[in-house]
Amino acid sequence: MRSPAALAQRALLLEVAATPTPGNVDREHDLPDLRFDRFLAGASGARAGLDAIALGSPLGEGFEQAIEGMAAAAGTNTQFGALLVLAPMVRAAASGDDEGPAAGRSITPADVEAVVDGTTVDDAAAFYRAFEHVSVRVDEPPEAMDELDVRRGAEAVPDVRERGLTLADVLAPATEHDDVAREWTEGFERSFGAAERLLGGTGPLVDRAAAVHLDLLAERPDTLVETKHGEDVAADVAERAAALDPADEDAVRAFAAELCDRGINPGTTADILAGGLFLALLDRGGAP
Amino acid sequence: MRSPAALAQRALLLEVAATPTPGNVDREHDLPDLRFDRFLAGASGARAGLDAIALGSPLGEGFEQAIEGMAAAAGTNTQFGALLVLAPMVRAAASGDDEGPAAGRSITPADVEAVVDGTTVDDAAAFYRAFEHVSVRVDEPPEAMDELDVRRGAEAVPDVRERGLTLADVLAPATEHDDVAREWTEGFERSFGAAERLLGGTGPLVDRAAAVHLDLLAERPDTLVETKHGEDVAADVAERAAALDPADEDAVRAFAAELCDRGINPGTTADILAGGLFLALLDRGGAP
Repeated sequence: MRSPAALAQRALLLEVAATPTPGNVDREHDLPDLRFDRFLAGASGARAGLDAIALGSPLGEGFEQAIEGMAAAAGTNTQFGALLVLAPMVRAAASGDDEGPAAGRSITPADVEAVVDGTTVDDAAAFYRAFEHVSVRVDEPPEAMDELDVRRGAEAVPDVRERGLTLADVLAPATEHDDVAREWTEGFERSFGAAERLLGGTGPLVDRAAAVHLDLLAERPDTLVETKHGEDVAADVAERAAALDPADEDAVRAFAAELCDRGINPGTTADILAGGLFLALLDRGGAP
Repeated sequence: MRSPAALAQRALLLEVAATPTPGNVDREHDLPDLRFDRFLAGASGARAGLDAIALGSPLGEGFEQAIEGMAAAAGTNTQFGALLVLAPMVRAAASGDDEGPAAGRSITPADVEAVVDGTTVDDAAAFYRAFEHVSVRVDEPPEAMDELDVRRGAEAVPDVRERGLTLADVLAPATEHDDVAREWTEGFERSFGAAERLLGGTGPLVDRAAAVHLDLLAERPDTLVETKHGEDVAADVAERAAALDPADEDAVRAFAAELCDRGINPGTTADILAGGLFLALLDRGGAP
């Protein structure tokens, strides 16, 4: 038996345990205002919402429940983006399996895209409500999108309903500046790519995860870093990650320490890694 | 809302994250054959069984489900003893509350004792079956108890049924040599004591947990260490823990490293700490 909700939770735990993941909280790194144990608590608090998604609750409602539980347990936002990546994957893994929702199954990009395509206006409304539970760093919305600014939280819901926007619709415009939204619109391309690399590696999955984090960081500038520090800093971080020899542990650790010191936290990269870990765990049938 | 199952899972995660917990796997220590991430996986896998207990499934059945899920996810035994401490606490916290089983509530030793007193022969049978999923280090049973040796696993069930033994009954004789069984028969005295010290401390709960682990280690010789290394070693570890100044971080870390090197793992102490963490989290209403 492979419960997709349990595997999604395990993906959150392995993501934060993997070390070093330069700039992010991990087994060996805390940030001044965000400690490792908060992520463990967040993963624990999110589980009921993930279970709800696996059991067939509306996707947005389950996502909002996961965020509410995460925030209550962690006391802060720890895994909003990761849960946004995981939510449609968990639904896809729990759907259409003769063994029932708890069994889980390997999934394809088309499976997750079908979930995205099936999102509703209610899902979008719940997504906006989820922001009420946490403070999430987001970029300035384009002028025309002001009424849909996620920072409005539940206040934006009447506008969402009036325009008849689904969750997929409200995430689409964010694709340009948020790589979690980009996963939603581009078939979770990077998450599936990460899973492939995780499955191709050797040694404990948690160690492979650290290597894949570095790959992802080099692959594209982290959009959370772009939002907080600007495009130049994000591009520089990606270039430096690409130039690192992953086998040179000292260099990777020095890079990790430097990013932590500078407050540069590639959170979007971590979110996508969590998605990749879920897909890899699913493919392994939940094997350790 | 405070879900007792979520808090029990969080207790497992905080227990293994707390560092240093001399001799045990923690955020900063792996053992050669047992790594940190296995405990994260075990906690994730145990959750469905904990949920079942909170929702009212027979205690033994929920416990067996938790052990099965833990072992499948971790690939080994990570938290058998801790789950045996937590199971009746979760049931007690989920019972008799007008807000329903998911709400949780603070509990007293009498509440948990009532759960213990209410265990059945079926619970005992499920407890024996749980051993089929894992290899658990146990002491040689007394001569007269051979038919009830837990190492017989499900084979012992007919004898348990014939004698009409409840789960409380089968744990009672182990009180002498297993402090998890002793918790069951003595009102979870040490777990409640640990909770009191956790609640009386300052700073993040995970840091207080490390301090309380040292207290517990000094309080009584660890029975898992007794089983594996003999009474003298266990008594020596307790004496040395008592002699340590908890504020002397270097000395505590050196002690932790030495115990890890010698393969001395006070697992029973960790089990009781997990119980204390659950009670403390419950009392705090799940606050971070």
